Amino acid sequence: MTTTEAGATVPSGESQEAGAQEIVTDHDRGIHGYHKQKDEHLKRLRRIEGQIRGLQRMVDEDVYCIDILTQVSASTKALQSFALQLLEEHLRHCVADAALKGGTEIDAKVEEATKAIGRLLRT
Amino acid sequence: MTTTEAGATVPSGESQEAGAQEIVTDHDRGIHGYHKQKDEHLKRLRRIEGQIRGLQRMVDEDVYCIDILTQVSASTKALQSFALQLLEEHLRHCVADAALKGGTEIDAKVEEATKAIGRLLRT
Amino acid sequence: MTTTEAGATVPSGESQEAGAQEIVTDHDRGIHGYHKQKDEHLKRLRRIEGQIRGLQRMVDEDVYCIDILTQVSASTKALQSFALQLLEEHLRHCVADAALKGGTEIDAKVEEATKAIGRLLRT
Amino acid sequence: MTTTEAGATVPSGESQEAGAQEIVTDHDRGIHGYHKQKDEHLKRLRRIEGQIRGLQRMVDEDVYCIDILTQVSASTKALQSFALQLLEEHLRHCVADAALKGGTEIDAKVEEATKAIGRLLRT
Repeated sequence: MTTTEAGATVPSGESQEAGAQEIVTDHDRGIHGYHKQKDEHLKRLRRIEGQIRGLQRMVDEDVYCIDILTQVSASTKALQSFALQLLEEHLRHCVADAALKGGTEIDAKVEEATKAIGRLLRT
Repeated sequence: MTTTEAGATVPSGESQEAGAQEIVTDHDRGIHGYHKQKDEHLKRLRRIEGQIRGLQRMVDEDVYCIDILTQVSASTKALQSFALQLLEEHLRHCVADAALKGGTEIDAKVEEATKAIGRLLRT
Repeated sequence: MTTTEAGATVPSGESQEAGAQEIVTDHDRGIHGYHKQKDEHLKRLRRIEGQIRGLQRMVDEDVYCIDILTQVSASTKALQSFALQLLEEHLRHCVADAALKGGTEIDAKVEEATKAIGRLLRT
Repeated sequence: MTTTEAGATVPSGESQEAGAQEIVTDHDRGIHGYHKQKDEHLKRLRRIEGQIRGLQRMVDEDVYCIDILTQVSASTKALQSFALQLLEEHLRHCVADAALKGGTEIDAKVEEATKAIGRLLRT
């Protein structure tokens, strides 16, 4: 039994005949693409939380507007960068899984991902 | 012989044993995801070209700055929306194809797509 | 003695002759444009901090990637909206003050503000 | 008669008594902030028009999706950069003019400019 890049268990032997429907992926087991980087994600988010608390301090201490705006840009960039990493893992796992399974799920997954990208672009 | 959502030809019968390496996809044949929407894409782009020419007229006729900025926002939005549609087709075809083929290509494709999304986000 | 929209004290009577150099603005007194909305800003930022903590919970509880991305978009939008309000107050006070004072300060202030807007756009 | 940075004619002599209401600015004369850079703006926009035509060629010649997306990012960036330059001139002239005139016009102008920036951010 081998595992593909997409984390799907490729059935071998008799299960082969059973067809694509029986492919069981990490995703089916409730393991999303990002779970391996969980610690890294939490570390990133805690850093962003620290930046937001830094912004509160800046406003409280009447720091010059432009310097606050620079810090807002840094926080937004950090959030976008976190989103990109999450998205990359999502494409690598959930979307690739759907492709392996065949059927119409890939369409739904790609549409869903594209809408999420659209929301990120419009902010 | 059936065609999956991702446009890949699923091998049947004896070709099955030959393994993933022999899957021939639209993408291999030089047919990219967006070729079916080519006319629609060209129509969209011609409309955007018209908007840019409209901007030149506005500058030439000394239209009020804010009105020009509104038109710039509309053109940027149209470009982003074109990019999103292209990206959706790319994910549905090229990325899904790579997933079907197995191996490490999916990683390369997902990384490439994520970098393209990152470039769109940062503009 | 009247106060203009920009918060500058318009000199009357004999001080008129003394010229623009003696205009003393809120900005000179270390009161930046945003100080009046300080409480509102801090409330907004605390809400964003709560959103970021919500994101950590979502990652920790293995929530579906797309739902996390939606929450990231909401947080980014909230940050951008905070930035816009700060920028509006900055233009109304600091930039307008520089205009009232005359001289080259307005050029420096406008360039500085434009660069800050550019940084916001590119994130 | 001297001209301030904001392009406003500072009244001297007897016109002084007439007060702020009579300040006549370039803006009043229908000369917007950007008229001096008109040629440069038109050159930029023609270059962007060329990029959009390049995109049509790329789609027509079935160029790889990711390469098209890279070109879209470049065009969007060029549009945003044009918008930023226009905005800088607008702040330097129209907004600064409004500040010089006093009254409530500065509020209206700043609100208008902020809304335009918001539209640029959300694309």
